[in-house]
Amino acid sequence: MKIALDAMGGDYAPAVTIEGAIETLHDFDDIEIILVGDESVIERELDSKRYSPQRISIKHASQVVMMDDSPSLAIRKKKDSSIRRGIELVKAGDADGFVSAGHSGVVMATALMILGTSEVVDRPAIATIMPTLNEPFVLIDAGANILCKPHNLLQFAIMGSIYCRTILGRVNPKVVLISTGEEDTKGNELTKETFKLLREADINFVGNVDGKDIFTGDFDVIVCDGFTGNVILKTSEGLADALVKMLKREIAGGTAGRIGCLLMKPALKAFKKKTDYDEYGGAPLLGINGTCIISHGRSTAKAIKNAIRVASDFAQKQVYNIISSVIAKDLSLHERMHVVKK
Amino acid sequence: MKIALDAMGGDYAPAVTIEGAIETLHDFDDIEIILVGDESVIERELDSKRYSPQRISIKHASQVVMMDDSPSLAIRKKKDSSIRRGIELVKAGDADGFVSAGHSGVVMATALMILGTSEVVDRPAIATIMPTLNEPFVLIDAGANILCKPHNLLQFAIMGSIYCRTILGRVNPKVVLISTGEEDTKGNELTKETFKLLREADINFVGNVDGKDIFTGDFDVIVCDGFTGNVILKTSEGLADALVKMLKREIAGGTAGRIGCLLMKPALKAFKKKTDYDEYGGAPLLGINGTCIISHGRSTAKAIKNAIRVASDFAQKQVYNIISSVIAKDLSLHERMHVVKK
Repeated sequence: MKIALDAMGGDYAPAVTIEGAIETLHDFDDIEIILVGDESVIERELDSKRYSPQRISIKHASQVVMMDDSPSLAIRKKKDSSIRRGIELVKAGDADGFVSAGHSGVVMATALMILGTSEVVDRPAIATIMPTLNEPFVLIDAGANILCKPHNLLQFAIMGSIYCRTILGRVNPKVVLISTGEEDTKGNELTKETFKLLREADINFVGNVDGKDIFTGDFDVIVCDGFTGNVILKTSEGLADALVKMLKREIAGGTAGRIGCLLMKPALKAFKKKTDYDEYGGAPLLGINGTCIISHGRSTAKAIKNAIRVASDFAQKQVYNIISSVIAKDLSLHERMHVVKK
Repeated sequence: MKIALDAMGGDYAPAVTIEGAIETLHDFDDIEIILVGDESVIERELDSKRYSPQRISIKHASQVVMMDDSPSLAIRKKKDSSIRRGIELVKAGDADGFVSAGHSGVVMATALMILGTSEVVDRPAIATIMPTLNEPFVLIDAGANILCKPHNLLQFAIMGSIYCRTILGRVNPKVVLISTGEEDTKGNELTKETFKLLREADINFVGNVDGKDIFTGDFDVIVCDGFTGNVILKTSEGLADALVKMLKREIAGGTAGRIGCLLMKPALKAFKKKTDYDEYGGAPLLGINGTCIISHGRSTAKAIKNAIRVASDFAQKQVYNIISSVIAKDLSLHERMHVVKK
């Protein structure tokens, strides 16, 4: 598999993204990488590294999208950005997938424009993986669509189930809908209408949950609109950070002192690994015609490596084709959605 | 102060609620308690306890609202419930405030019906306290209003600021609005419109935040609609539970083993205390004519005691009167709201 990597995207780019690319080459034999970005910058960065030159190439792009660029402006004014050039490689068939830790809004809008959505999918969504007490779950939509209709959430549920089966290897993944309680009468208009659609859909829908139950590991796919998904993702990130800091402070200041600290290190490390974003790499954009993985802006080299691994797996299994055919096959569903839309 | 306590409300009622009442009498000299509920059940429970009988009394109520009762049905069919009788005591002036760990939806609807909202407040809201790395913050609305308009969120911000000043003693509390990013262009229609109103309001509004930043302790009042508030509250609860369980598992299974466990105990205990709901007691219903504190269904005796303490403080400082007068005084604001409402 040949993966295009946005060398310029992310808080620690290009050094860390290129480091991630090189680690990928070490760990995986069947992946080639195209580094997309400013050629001279990338070459300078590569100069100091040891790697197999036959499995790495450069695609020059003269512009860089900054984190505070507006998506519409970036798309109009930065036609030679690393994001756009990378996605164009996928469109042209010169790369099997694209990975970026850059501006997620611009990646999404560009992917939508260049690759387009599957004909039967109305709105692509971001599916992100979150850790639990046991196996991680897929949160969809994690922030692509602030405003959603019930049939969008139905498609998110179907796409999330397919992702969960094909990439995470879960059999018959359990799907739940985020609401303010378990009863179907709980929640807002969107969740109440979505509940009815999910109950009829050809997925393993097990009902509503509130936020309290999502980290038990009992569910595989958690469905919500992008505003709620963003709130869940960011709140969890903020709380986990705060709890680890609080705990470290308590340990350092407590009677156990330095001995406790030392003894605790392996546990804290294992704990950090389990809750670490880096392990899961990136979040695929589901519903577009191609493979596009969005990584966290704060991605480390390991996170980039894992995102490239996910992209390769995703492209190899042609997950975007499975999504199209599953949604298209369910014709009655498709018809129903179009009735809802009109 | 004389506080009416719903003796029958909560997962561990009546034993634990009555235990909480008795602990309150031990810890606070200036509080009297009226236990509301089935007289014979309460008397049997009190029989085995030591307490000052002159500071505790019973108000009989023959019915109990169950957690799966629908609010509308409970209000129509259970007119002699401990929730209703307790709130009636506040209305009649026989109690200065009411505390319940029972069905929060029924408490809210009954308080709204019996006590009513302040004339100038459109929708009452639940203000709950959440821990951070430093000082806790007030989350408003934590779940009372699933569907909100911008002027509702404006009033939540004003009420939250007053609560934060009068009860938590913060000077000029910093107010933020939950959105999907800091920029005023981020979020949904509700947050964008609310942003404009908050910027003009006579509060210390410092802008939008996403969930990542709420646990830093940099902000005092976090404003959102009740659906989002419920998601934040429940997700945080679920994640904190899961993280503590994960950590305990790592410690127990790690090389440090039992020694690490023992050394860690004080740190875990201090940590638990800091993140413990019990310490903060209950969440006031802001915007109604009177003092009404809603406690968690899982309230321990300590949580009940702290909720009674908050109710007493709230009643003594007449927070509900301050809310009315502040919102009413800002006449131009009031007028603007009515323009928005029409």
